[in-house]
Parts: sequence; C-alpha cells; structure tokens
Amino acid sequence: MSTVQKRDKLIKQWIKEAAESIELAKEESLKVEEKSARNDLVTNMDKEIEEELTNKIRAEFPEDRICGEEGFGDDLKDLKGTVWFVDPIDGTLNYVLQQENFAVMVGVYEDGVGVQGYIYDVCKDKLYHAIKGMGVYCNGQPVKSPENKSLSAGLVATNSQLMTQDQFAEYRKIAGKSMGVRMLGSAGLEIIELLKGNVIAYMASKLSPWDIAPGKVMIEEVGFKVSQFDGSEVDLLNRNKTIFSTVKAFDEIVTANSK
Amino acid sequence: MSTVQKRDKLIKQWIKEAAESIELAKEESLKVEEKSARNDLVTNMDKEIEEELTNKIRAEFPEDRICGEEGFGDDLKDLKGTVWFVDPIDGTLNYVLQQENFAVMVGVYEDGVGVQGYIYDVCKDKLYHAIKGMGVYCNGQPVKSPENKSLSAGLVATNSQLMTQDQFAEYRKIAGKSMGVRMLGSAGLEIIELLKGNVIAYMASKLSPWDIAPGKVMIEEVGFKVSQFDGSEVDLLNRNKTIFSTVKAFDEIVTANSK
Repeated sequence: MSTVQKRDKLIKQWIKEAAESIELAKEESLKVEEKSARNDLVTNMDKEIEEELTNKIRAEFPEDRICGEEGFGDDLKDLKGTVWFVDPIDGTLNYVLQQENFAVMVGVYEDGVGVQGYIYDVCKDKLYHAIKGMGVYCNGQPVKSPENKSLSAGLVATNSQLMTQDQFAEYRKIAGKSMGVRMLGSAGLEIIELLKGNVIAYMASKLSPWDIAPGKVMIEEVGFKVSQFDGSEVDLLNRNKTIFSTVKAFDEIVTANSK
Repeated sequence: MSTVQKRDKLIKQWIKEAAESIELAKEESLKVEEKSARNDLVTNMDKEIEEELTNKIRAEFPEDRICGEEGFGDDLKDLKGTVWFVDPIDGTLNYVLQQENFAVMVGVYEDGVGVQGYIYDVCKDKLYHAIKGMGVYCNGQPVKSPENKSLSAGLVATNSQLMTQDQFAEYRKIAGKSMGVRMLGSAGLEIIELLKGNVIAYMASKLSPWDIAPGKVMIEEVGFKVSQFDGSEVDLLNRNKTIFSTVKAFDEIVTANSK
C-alpha cells in the first residue's frame, strides 16, 4: 500500500470517527467561547477533535507536520515535506446556532503541492475527496465534472463580511453580475456547491490555510481555479482573500477586480 | 369534515403530486424563459404546475379566488372571501441551475386573514404546514417553537438584491449587526430556516404575495412577526420589502431602519 493509499484509508476512518463525536456532543451542552470577534466562535468540540486528529496523525506519520485551526499543530514557517491541514469543524457558527451545515476537513500537501483533500458534510453524510490526478469522489462514487460556466450564467457564493463591510463594495458589484448570491456559512460546504455545479464561484474575504487547503486539491482536480482576489497564488501560511471558481468566471472576476 | 380539514387533506395531496411532476421533469430538458430580468426565470414546469393546481382548486372550491405567480389565477383587487396563494416553484433559479433548493407553496386566506400555509422542500421531502391556532408541523410532527433571539444572537437570511444593490446599504449594515448572513435563494426555504431557529430573521427586498402568504401563516403561528421593512402590514395585492423575524430582532431591525 502506498503512503497516499494508507493516508486515504486512515483519513476517511478518522473523519468518520470525528463526525460521530461531533454528533454525540450535540446531545450535551456545548462549551462556546469567542476568539477574535463575537462571531468568531470556538467550541470544546473544535479543540477536542483537532487534538484527537493531531494525535492520530503524529502516531502514524511522525515525520509529518500539521497546520490546524486550534493550535494543536506545528508553528509552520514553510511548507517543506508533508504538511497536513486540519479543520476540525468548518462552520463553527452554524454548528453552534443551527446544529447543521458544517464540515470536517483534512488536506495533505507535499512540498507545497496539494495531494489529497477531504471535506465531510457531516449532517448529510457526504464525504467528498480527491487524490491528485485521480478525480473527485463523493462517498466513493466519481463526481461528474462541473460545467465551466461564465459569471453571468451561474450563482456565486460569498461570505458574510463580503456582504456587510464597506471595503468590499467592488466585490458585491462583481457578485451582482452573476445570476444571484448564495451563502451557507462554511467554506467546505461552498466548495461542495462548486463541485456540484450549484454555484460557479466562491469568493471569501478572509480564509485561513485550513479553510483553503482541502478544497483547493478538489477544485484544481476538476480543472477550476483557486487564487487570491488579485489572481496571485494563495499563501498557505497566512490568511487570504480567496476565489475558488470555474475558469471562465475566474477570468471575469479577476479582470473586473484589477480595473 | 370541516372546510379547513378538507382543504388540508387536498393541499397535501396536490403538493405531493406537483412535486412528483417537478422531479420527473428534471430528467427531460426544461424549457426556460426570462421574465422581468435575466435572473427572473420561468420554466414550463412553473406554468404547468400552477395550471394544474389552479384547475384542482377551481374544481373543488369553485367560489374561491386564486392568486398565482404565472397568471392562471384571478386578477385580484381585494382579499374578500377565500383567496388561495399558489407558488408552483419557489426558487426557480435554483431549480434551473441546481436542481435542488426549491419549494412548492400554497396559502389560504379568509377575508385577508391567513388560515392555512404549506411549504414543501421537495428535495429534502419535508412538508411544513400550519393551520391558524393549531401550531406548525413538519411531515405531520409538531415543530418545536423557535427561540425568540435578538439580532446580535443569530444569523440573518437575505436575498441577492439586498446584497448587491446600492439602495440597500442600510440593510446590509443591519445584517452586519447579526452573527452572519445566510442566503439559500428561496423565500420558502428561508422561512423554514426561521421556523427551525437556524436564522432569526429573513429580510427580502422584493417579495410577491405568493412568496409571502404561505410562510406568513406559519411565522405568525409561532408568535413571530411579518411586515414591510418600515414595520407596516404586508400588502398581499402587491410586492413588498418584507421582514420575517423573531419579535426581538424585529424590533431592532425596524428601529434601526426608521432612524
């Protein structure tokens, strides 16, 4: 079994185990804390799941490094070697307020190149994954490649800040050229919408490496684009204003943006 | 069997029959036309379903009048007597572009007072309904009343125009006081989110009577509020800028708006 195959088997198992713990925790009362802002929340489950995933990765792959949201990973200054990106609960606000519409995400990169990406829509029991060069799958079944539609022919997903903050007026105009805007509140679930062809782009004003890395593998696997708003490469050591998009819409968004 | 009971039984049956036709039509190629704008679409199915529902209502309740999106109903100048509101496919853009995230909706009013409301989330097979004074049900099971949360304690649903048009900047600021914004692109599905407690308000810059009437019965049944943006009664003969909301958030939104 290759290293990629070994990781694939383990990641799928670990994600399902994590999801079980997350679902069970709904029955008990969650402990919720604020992080950087009143709507940037973290729960005891975000922390417990990340710690658990981190321990499992370290036990099986002691050479690898880990980049995670809750600080159980390593303090990365570069992407050399094998780096794991872990988002224990993507869409924590939904998890706290809705008890649905959140995801568990894992990505694996080798020397900065995305090799494996996993997004699990826990409540719908849909595990999307991609291995570089092998296509995208949902619950083990190949996902039909989404159409390469233009901005004016599809819907665009965005994040809340892009809707409400003055500095993003330009991007609201770009979104206004599409057929309409949709917002689920989870980067992972927006990426799934893009993979399904339900939207033709996802523009988010602030995404962290663990929000970006797993989906980037999948989106590039279907031949679509991922970049910062200005068209430059995303930086997986920092936060980014990020576009995930069909090729056609990408060119329109980046061109509109550079005017 | 009372008239309300007879209507209840028939509406549930008719909605399920409509949904079957809508699902079957996905297999064939839909005929899509533009109405008022490039993102205001109508399909052959919107028309066929409304015609079918209208014929069924007229056959069983020949005295009643009908207000529908596609023009098979009556040209209403008042709401006297029994008036039916029919939205054959609420979220047509989603139906065309995503083949999911749309609803079939029916509402019945007597002398302008909402008596029965039905919203069917076709792809999730969830039929929500309310009869005035009898509570809200999902697939026949009582729905737990959602919490009366404040604006700052919950998520807010909006529509695309509110996000992208200059004239709605004030409302984007109000939305910014919430925990975050969510957008599904179907008035019916946003109302379901409010009934589930997933959002605490739905603000839409332009809703027609058939978008409002069915959900209004349900939202008022759980003790929440429905009005125009300025707090005045919605007008079920015209389009409205509409708020559906918890009582607490409603007061905050209308107050913020009247400043």
